[in-house]
This record gives sequence, C-alpha cells and structure tokens, in this order.
Amino acid sequence: MAVRVGVVNVTGFAGMEAARLLRSHPGAELAAATGRSLAGRRLGEAFPHLAAYGDFPITAELEADVDVVFSALPTGASAEACAPLVRRGVRVVDIAADFRLRDADEFAHWFGVAHPAPELLDRAVYGLAELHAAAIAEADLVANPGCYPTAAILALAPALAAGLIEPRVFVDAKSGISGAGRGGGGGHGYSDANEDVSAYRVANHNHQPEMVQELSRLREGPPVAVTFVPHLVPMTRGIHATCHAPLARPVTQAEALAVYRDFYAGEPFTVVSETPPHTKHATGSNACLVHPAVDERNGALVAIGALDNLMKGAAGSAIENMNLMFGLPREAGLDRPALYP
Amino acid sequence: MAVRVGVVNVTGFAGMEAARLLRSHPGAELAAATGRSLAGRRLGEAFPHLAAYGDFPITAELEADVDVVFSALPTGASAEACAPLVRRGVRVVDIAADFRLRDADEFAHWFGVAHPAPELLDRAVYGLAELHAAAIAEADLVANPGCYPTAAILALAPALAAGLIEPRVFVDAKSGISGAGRGGGGGHGYSDANEDVSAYRVANHNHQPEMVQELSRLREGPPVAVTFVPHLVPMTRGIHATCHAPLARPVTQAEALAVYRDFYAGEPFTVVSETPPHTKHATGSNACLVHPAVDERNGALVAIGALDNLMKGAAGSAIENMNLMFGLPREAGLDRPALYP
Amino acid sequence: MAVRVGVVNVTGFAGMEAARLLRSHPGAELAAATGRSLAGRRLGEAFPHLAAYGDFPITAELEADVDVVFSALPTGASAEACAPLVRRGVRVVDIAADFRLRDADEFAHWFGVAHPAPELLDRAVYGLAELHAAAIAEADLVANPGCYPTAAILALAPALAAGLIEPRVFVDAKSGISGAGRGGGGGHGYSDANEDVSAYRVANHNHQPEMVQELSRLREGPPVAVTFVPHLVPMTRGIHATCHAPLARPVTQAEALAVYRDFYAGEPFTVVSETPPHTKHATGSNACLVHPAVDERNGALVAIGALDNLMKGAAGSAIENMNLMFGLPREAGLDRPALYP
Amino acid sequence: MAVRVGVVNVTGFAGMEAARLLRSHPGAELAAATGRSLAGRRLGEAFPHLAAYGDFPITAELEADVDVVFSALPTGASAEACAPLVRRGVRVVDIAADFRLRDADEFAHWFGVAHPAPELLDRAVYGLAELHAAAIAEADLVANPGCYPTAAILALAPALAAGLIEPRVFVDAKSGISGAGRGGGGGHGYSDANEDVSAYRVANHNHQPEMVQELSRLREGPPVAVTFVPHLVPMTRGIHATCHAPLARPVTQAEALAVYRDFYAGEPFTVVSETPPHTKHATGSNACLVHPAVDERNGALVAIGALDNLMKGAAGSAIENMNLMFGLPREAGLDRPALYP
Repeated sequence: MAVRVGVVNVTGFAGMEAARLLRSHPGAELAAATGRSLAGRRLGEAFPHLAAYGDFPITAELEADVDVVFSALPTGASAEACAPLVRRGVRVVDIAADFRLRDADEFAHWFGVAHPAPELLDRAVYGLAELHAAAIAEADLVANPGCYPTAAILALAPALAAGLIEPRVFVDAKSGISGAGRGGGGGHGYSDANEDVSAYRVANHNHQPEMVQELSRLREGPPVAVTFVPHLVPMTRGIHATCHAPLARPVTQAEALAVYRDFYAGEPFTVVSETPPHTKHATGSNACLVHPAVDERNGALVAIGALDNLMKGAAGSAIENMNLMFGLPREAGLDRPALYP
Repeated sequence: MAVRVGVVNVTGFAGMEAARLLRSHPGAELAAATGRSLAGRRLGEAFPHLAAYGDFPITAELEADVDVVFSALPTGASAEACAPLVRRGVRVVDIAADFRLRDADEFAHWFGVAHPAPELLDRAVYGLAELHAAAIAEADLVANPGCYPTAAILALAPALAAGLIEPRVFVDAKSGISGAGRGGGGGHGYSDANEDVSAYRVANHNHQPEMVQELSRLREGPPVAVTFVPHLVPMTRGIHATCHAPLARPVTQAEALAVYRDFYAGEPFTVVSETPPHTKHATGSNACLVHPAVDERNGALVAIGALDNLMKGAAGSAIENMNLMFGLPREAGLDRPALYP
Repeated sequence: MAVRVGVVNVTGFAGMEAARLLRSHPGAELAAATGRSLAGRRLGEAFPHLAAYGDFPITAELEADVDVVFSALPTGASAEACAPLVRRGVRVVDIAADFRLRDADEFAHWFGVAHPAPELLDRAVYGLAELHAAAIAEADLVANPGCYPTAAILALAPALAAGLIEPRVFVDAKSGISGAGRGGGGGHGYSDANEDVSAYRVANHNHQPEMVQELSRLREGPPVAVTFVPHLVPMTRGIHATCHAPLARPVTQAEALAVYRDFYAGEPFTVVSETPPHTKHATGSNACLVHPAVDERNGALVAIGALDNLMKGAAGSAIENMNLMFGLPREAGLDRPALYP
Repeated sequence: MAVRVGVVNVTGFAGMEAARLLRSHPGAELAAATGRSLAGRRLGEAFPHLAAYGDFPITAELEADVDVVFSALPTGASAEACAPLVRRGVRVVDIAADFRLRDADEFAHWFGVAHPAPELLDRAVYGLAELHAAAIAEADLVANPGCYPTAAILALAPALAAGLIEPRVFVDAKSGISGAGRGGGGGHGYSDANEDVSAYRVANHNHQPEMVQELSRLREGPPVAVTFVPHLVPMTRGIHATCHAPLARPVTQAEALAVYRDFYAGEPFTVVSETPPHTKHATGSNACLVHPAVDERNGALVAIGALDNLMKGAAGSAIENMNLMFGLPREAGLDRPALYP
C-alpha cells in the first residue's frame, strides 16, 4: 500500500516539487497538501504544471491521515508545525532548517529566535543519505539538509574523511534564483536578477554552521573552519559549490579521484566525474555530481559539487529520505534522467 | 516484452530526448543508438545527463534488431535512411520533415531536392495523434509533425473544424533556441541569442506547407491560407504559437471555449486553458496547452498553442506515436508533470 | 545654458533611464528627481549604476526650478501631477498613458477612471517624432507614446500611408520583462518569467486604442482595426512587434522596401532593414529598426518593428521630444551605438 | 586633432566594443579596422549596432595611417602583428595575452608556443591604470590585462599592499559567456550554456600567472600563491571574482574598508562598495566595483571585484590606456553610466 504523504506548504517551490515527484512515485502518494495563501484552491488549477492532480484540494491545515509529513514551511514556523506531529507519532521530514543544527544555542545565534522545540533536536537525524542512511531509516524526524550544504558536504566529505586536506575550507557557491523561494521579491525580480552575478550574506549565511557541524563529524580533531560565500547567478535551478582547501599532504589527481570513487562506491545519486560537472546535467534529477581537482602547483584541492537545488537540494532528497524511512527502494520515484538541454 | 527501439542520430537534441524518455518507459526500451560524429563513444559518457545508460554504445549504423526506428536525421538524409528500413518491414517514426508533405513536388519546392523515396509518401501517416490516432495505429511509417505545426494546428483545429473562422490565418510563433538544433552555430551562440528576439524566414519557412496541408483537411473548400512567421526567443525549450484569424461569424468567448473543450474531450495531452498558457507549464512534459480568445471588438479569433518543442514537438510525440503503433497505453512513458519552475 | 529637467518618479525604470541619459546630455541636465518610496535617499547610492550622481537628492516633491518635467508616474497619478505644472507654464513630457488618447471617454473606458484633466487633452501632442515633429516642437504638453505603439506604429505607418495594406492589422508583440516595471511582482519573479513565453491581456490591452488612433490618422477612411496581442519573453529590454495585414494591392518586396525607405528618409532613429531586425541591435540605443516583408503567396504584409522599450519606447523618446521642444539637435544625448552583445 | 586608432580584428567582441566606444570618443576616432573573415564588408552593415559607421570598410590589413593600434587578435597571432608596428614606431595596446607575462619562458609554458617577439617584453607595460598609470603614459607598447586578472588584482591589491592577508589566495571567478569570444562554439551554444554553471580549466587557466606576477609586485617576499578557478555562468557580460585569503593579522571590517578607500582614493573607475557589488551595476561602463568583507569567525578576507569583461576587462581598459598614452583625460569616452537594468 502506498505511503501517504502530507505536504505542508505545497505552495512554495520545494513543496510544489515534492508534489510533482509524488505524482509518479510507485510506492507513495500525495494524501494532503496545505498552503495558507492558496487554501481552498485546487492544486491542478493553482499550478498548471500539476494539472494531473485536478481537483486535489489545497487546505489550510492537514486534514487527511498521513504516514509522513514533508514540511516546507519557513524556518521557525516549521518546527512549530512539526513538533506536535512528531509527538503524536507522525514521521516527519523537515525541509526547513529547524532541526539541522544539533545545538539549540547555535540555532538561536543564527536564526535570531529561540528554538521552538529543543527537546526534539536529539531525535532528529541529519538527512544526508550518503552519510547517514542507516540512522535515517530508523528516524521519525529527519532534518533535510540545506541545498548549499548538500553540495559542499558531498564535495568535501571524501577528502576530509581520507585526510587529504586541512580542516580549513573556502566554500564558494553559486545558486539559481529559485533558491530564493517562490516569493521572489526583494531584488529577485527578473529585470534585476537577469544578467547579474552577486554575492550575498558573505561569510554570514546560516548554512555555514550546518557545513561545520557535518564536515567536522567526518574526522577527528577540532571543528572544520568554513568560510562560506553564496552567490546568485541568473538561472532558475542549480547549485554549484566550488570548495578550496589546502592539501594536508601531496596528492595526485589520480589518487584524489580514487579516494572519491571509493567513498561513493554503490551510491545511487552521487556521481564522481572526471571533468568539472555542469549543473545542467543534474536539472530535474536527484543527482549530485562531484569532482575533485588537485592544484599541484599550489598544494590545494578544488572539490566541486553540482546539483539541482529543488531536487537533491530539497524535495528529491526528502523523497529519498522517505524511501529509506519506509523501506522503499532508495531510487523509487527518483529514477528519471535529468532534463537536458 | 518491451518494444525495442532504435534511435538514429541520438546525438541531436530530438534523438537525445527520445533516449531520455525511453529510459523510464514501462513498455519500450532503447535497443540501438546511432550517431556518426560520436560513433564509438558510450552514451552515458557522451551525454552526462544520460549517465544511467552507462556503457550503452553509440554506433555508426543500426546494429541491433529493433521493432521500430525513430529517425532524427536531418531532412533528406532521413528519408534515405528510413526507406530501406520500411521496405524490409521495420516500422519507422520519422522525426525529420521527409514524409510530412504528401506531395513530392511540394517537398522539392520547399526543400530544394527531389524526394528520395516518393513511393513511400502514400504509406506515411501524419503523426498528430489528436487528429489521426486510428491511422497512426495501423501505420508502418509515421511522419512526426514539426514543432511549429503541432502548436499551430492544435491551436486552430477546433475553430476551423467548427467553422468559427475564415480559412485565412496568421501564425506568429516563438521558439526556444533548442529548435535550432544541437549544432547551435550561425547566430545561436549564447552571446548573440541571449537578450534578443528576432523573426527569421518570414513567410518562407518550410513548416508552412505542413500547416496548410493539415489545416485544409479539417474543412471543406479551398486550402487554408497561412502566413507563418517564426521567431527565436531567448529560452532553451518551448514553442508558443499565436494564431490570428477573422471570425466567420459572431462567436462569444464562452462558445469558443466550449467548441475547444468538445473537440479535445478525452485527449490526454491537449489541455484547453481558460487563460493564456505559459510555455513553462509544459517544459519536459508532452502537454500542448491551447487557449482560444475572441476579439469581439474586431471580429477575430486569437488561438494560442504552447508546448515543449523537444517533447510534444518532437521526441514526446514520437513516443506517443510508437505507443499507438504498438498498442501500448497512449500515455506510457509520458505521464510525468512538467518541470516547474 | 542647459535645459533643467525634473524627473518625477525617478525610481521606476523609465525615470531611472531618463536620469541615466541626462548624465551625458550636452544640452540638458537633471535638476530635480522625485520618488516617494526612496525620498530622502541619494540617487547615486540608491542606484549604484548612477553612482556618478553622488549625493544628488531624491525628494518627495519637485523642489528645484525646472524648464521641463518628465513624468514617469503610473497612469492616472501622472495626469494629476502634470496638470498643475502645465497650468503654471512648466513644459511637460508625460511618459505615462494619461494624455495619449484624445478622447476622454476612450480613456475612461480603457483605464476605468475618469480623466483627471480632460481640458488638457486638446493641448497634448502625441510625441512620436517621426510623425509629429513640428507639433512637438511647439507643444507644452507632450504625450510620450507607449512602448508597444511606438514599435507597431513605426512598423505600419509607411504601409498604411501609402495604401499598401488594408486597414485591418494583427499586431503580435513581444516585450522584455522590464516593460512590466520595476516592481516586478505578480509573476515577474525571475524563476517564473525565465524560460517562459506567454501572452497576456489578449486583444484587451490599453495600448490598442493608441494604435488605432494614430494609425487611423495616417489615411482617409474608417478607423484601422487592430487586434493586438502582447507577450512577455524572457529578456530584460526589448520590444519586437510583428504586424500582419492583408495587402490592398499586389506589392513586391522591392516596392515595399522603397516605400519604407522614402517614408523614413532623413529620420535619425528609424532604420529600415533589409533583413528581419534583432531587438539586441537596439539595446541601449534610441533606434527603432523597421522591416517590411511581403508574403506574396498569401497577399499579406509582415511589418516588423524592434526597439529598446526603455529607450525609444520610453526615456529615449522623452529626451528626443525634449530636444525638439527646446530647439536642441534631435540626437543630442542619444548618439551612442547600441550595447552589443 | 583626434587620435587616429586602428583596430586589428574588429570582428571579435573586444574589437567590436572598441569600435563602439570610439564612435563617441571626444578625442579619438576609428581610422582603420581589420578583420579577415569579414574583409571587404562594411562595418555598419556587418554589425547592425554599429550602423552609424555606415560604409566604413573592414579591411584585411591595416591600410590607414594610425597613431595607435588596438590588437584584438588571438594570443600568438597578436604578437606577430604587433611586433612590426612597434618596431616602426606605432604605439600599440595589445588586448591579447601576448605581452602580459614578463618572462618568455612562462609564456611558452602557459601558451605552448615560443614567444614571437621576446625582445619586446621589456618594453611592454602591464596596462592596469590603477597600478601603473605613470608607466603607461610613457609606454609605446601596453599589455592590456586579462578580464579575470583585472577583477582579481583590483579586488586584492589593497589588502596585499597593506599586509592584511597572507600571500595565499583562492580566486573563484565567474564570467559571462561573451568572455569565450564571438565564435561561441564548443559548448557555448545557447541551449548548452543557458541554465548552467560550470568550472573549466580548474587551477590551470593561463590568467593565473598574470595574477601571480602582478600581485607579487605589490609586496616584498616570495610570489603570491594563487589557486584560480574560472566558471561560466549564463549571462552575456560580466566578471565576478571572489577572492578568499587568510588574514595576516586581526582586521576589522571598518579597517578593511578604510584601507581599500585609501588605496583607491581619486581613482575614477574603481569604486569601493560597502555591500557586495553586482556585475549588472557595471554593464556597459568602465567601472570595477570592489568590496572587502572580513570573515572574523575564521580569520579570512573575502575580496570581491565586479566589472564588465568587454569594458574594464578589455576594450574600455584599452581606451583608458590610450587616453593615458596620448595625454587625454582618463575618462574621455568612458563617462557614461552603466546600462541598468
């Protein structure tokens, strides 16, 4: 019987993408979809690309019985919505940032509010399947990773785990505009964002502590230092993270590639590429393309991760985590190639 | 058992898209793929978004036994490749323009060469399933429609068939740049095509006679006059055809919508929209979104069609025709929602 | 001595563009700039591309003595702001739509409000210099044309004036997103507008009566019937109008070109092109590129106009009108080539 | 009397841009323009945005007497064309990479050919006016800097000169597609480049030694280590360089800003910004927007430079250097605001 999924805030890009993926999932189905601004509307009419859903209602609150909830609410609001669900036994994948940091003080520091449900932080599992598949399978609360951290952590993990690099990385990431959300106001109008590149929240973005936390778990020793600079580039979908780090010892290109291939052997979505990957090769798919390049001249590693921010960076990863939680094949509903060109 | 498909010229955008769709088709599979420039390469390496195909070889000639061939060769070359296949009993869907015009002289006029296999023209069925599903199901040679004609014919067919408009139409169509093919030379470099709109082959494009032929079959009387102006707009995928025609009699907006809904009742891919459709709502899907708007002030109909030129305008339609030819469900392999945003 | 210009609503795209052009105008200068939302801010800081203006203040009301005002307010608000200025002898170029239609009832019909200053309509001159240069030079109130009408009227005027076509035209126009204004909300966020084409206000846009009024003045007889369909395409700047009309008599391509060249002989900004023009060839310039193409097969004319909507379609045209009003060379401040690519 | 300029290879983007700028330069004029593929064509017809040049001929060889030549040939070919000109006393600004590296061995290493005129390397001055204005004014051979180095060097120079950072930098740069040249083949077709970000020549691009050379001149001690990773992003114009480096000592944000402002005090084109700059704020202008951001948490500096690659990154800088060489005002012909949006 199909897993019944409730999507909270189906009207944002991540929620909408989850609904899209569930439409053709062989073992799960959309059972409920909420969205305050469009409550009362029909899903197939509010979003013409989801016309196949027809009269499926968008409601103000979750009204159907569901086996699992995907929360795509804004940070803060998400924890408030998820906490009562978890307490009454509904499994939750939180696509927001509320349960990613294990330390409530860190959360308060970065998000400027006290955590609404700190007692749940210990139960939450960081939902990056390449690192924590077994724990995700047992979890009732999964914190879906941020789009930037997914790209950066997958790019750096093999090198840190193998001791190839110093624990001092510079993550320079480029995101398509859909990462700014469906609202799209405040400088994300077409005329402003088109033909433009800019950095924002330089070394001050709340995805940074998430990278520090997860990268630091990959090795012994002090926390990994991460200077993180996100940029917006004029495209809709895609994250490209270029991570620079000093080598800890001499490494050849062949050795780096071998370390990466070993680390990701058997992984269905993480593809180690011999050449620098293109975000466009992941559009609409759940792939994360990873490429290590050794700068022998300067003793540095350049590790690149590329993915679709709404797929592996959000809704695709949520489906992947649900698959693990409910014993479904990890690739269920996620097996279509990228849309190219 | 799965239908075995050979894709001739998998290295163009249409052939590549067919391979993508076959990857997740429940009743068909890619059995062979040719492409001269990349012969000897592996499909999954030549096109990273098709990585799931792994070592599947690209060959110079069709080497496997196949039940059906999709030819995505350039016009002229395609008929030469298809003719021997048809003669020895392999069913063919020709994605090129070679078998669309029923008149060999018209072909010679528009393409500047004699038709390579005129004796096959009578056997070819014009592969627009909304108009010719029964004939397609029986055909061994299907001429897949052009991308522009698909949008324009689907936009105009109900109005012409119901006698709402005079047989005098102005088709003003806008195409994404992928319509110009994978080569992309000659002004289709990014820096030239970006931030630009231009018309080309004004009233002189070889998709015009295709529109005349098919639109004229929808009604009694002389051929439909079609002034066709194609434009390139800075996006990758999408065709938007706005068709202007004088009303033949007074028509209300409600009546026009009713005529369109009746005409397309039960059709799986043609969606009649109450508001002007967006090409983006069809990206990656096989939908054609159709919208009639009555200009009461001036006694005219504006009929709009919007689709993805590589899907309903090329490879999606080829899959749809194959489904009909082999008794598969019409939507097999074509049931995923559009990718939005 | 330089003409002193006040720009009312400098914070919209048209006002901002006027300020940009005035910065390097040899005979005029920005003397005052208003903008409610940013009143109190400095121009060079609010808009980094205008950094050369440094501390030039944005004020809530016009505070300096000025010779002429450019009003870039929304329609309705603009007439209210312009009327008292005109009454006290300040010359005005209204970039909004308030003084374009000569008939107050037509205005009320299309804009849904009574005209705020109907007694001024007779004094207003329609500011399309190619048609009304002498009247503009004498005017104290100039109604700057809309962006779509500028492209369509310049494309059609020679053919209508010479009697080449029937007074029945279909104007199919494509606009960059900056035409929707700086706000950019309501579907003009990057992620929605990118990779999309759609029509809007089909046969119901308030630029239609403007075309009817001006095109009808070019010939004897009843008003010209205009079916006008605007589209948004994913680029920032540019208008491309493709105008379809039945020929009134047989016309050759050479004759059409000759008629157009005669009509625009000596015009500094209207360029008759032998091939279909590209909007990109006008970006940042005041040019309007015009191209007539005869569809001999069907007895139709396809007349194309291409321009930059913020230049010839708004602020460039305002500068051009000011030059005429103050006896400056028509090309003053408008003599730089387009920015390509 | 106007300086007479010859543009060698006017048919590339940089040469074309130089012609555009010369059209409205108050003290210089285009006197000759060469271009092999279009020799015999007229400039105003080959490039419609340069229509104002009308019948100005494109020739195979320089045919007019000129005071200075801008060479926009490919690297290697450029030195061969420039050397005889320099020897016979024509002043040269080389927009190619041929005279940037002072060491002929370095040139051979990075470009794979022996330098065609090594004896001229000593006479060549690196044409970055912010650093070498006096030498440029005296030079007869100026090596115009690369687009990436211009952004990176201007972003890093104040910090290196003041000893704020260690001589170990990671330059992560993003370029619009016009940087790949007018040919635009090989993956720069619209359909491939649109909606894509990718890195290329990771830590192996020939602009790296140029950065090392010039950055190392700013301080005592060993050469600066530079890991350089260029990326292509889907826009036409613009370079955005984000430079990461460890701080050499504790530095506050206010101190960093003060150091940068002092360094660039009086500079006409280099603007120190308090917030992360946008490439779009420099489009079509000669500005380089610079922004230092201190990452106090990790003891790092993030220094950003943003510019238009065809202006300050190529032709604008060539004009600026010519102005210095001929005693013209540095901003002559370069004083227009950026085109925004």
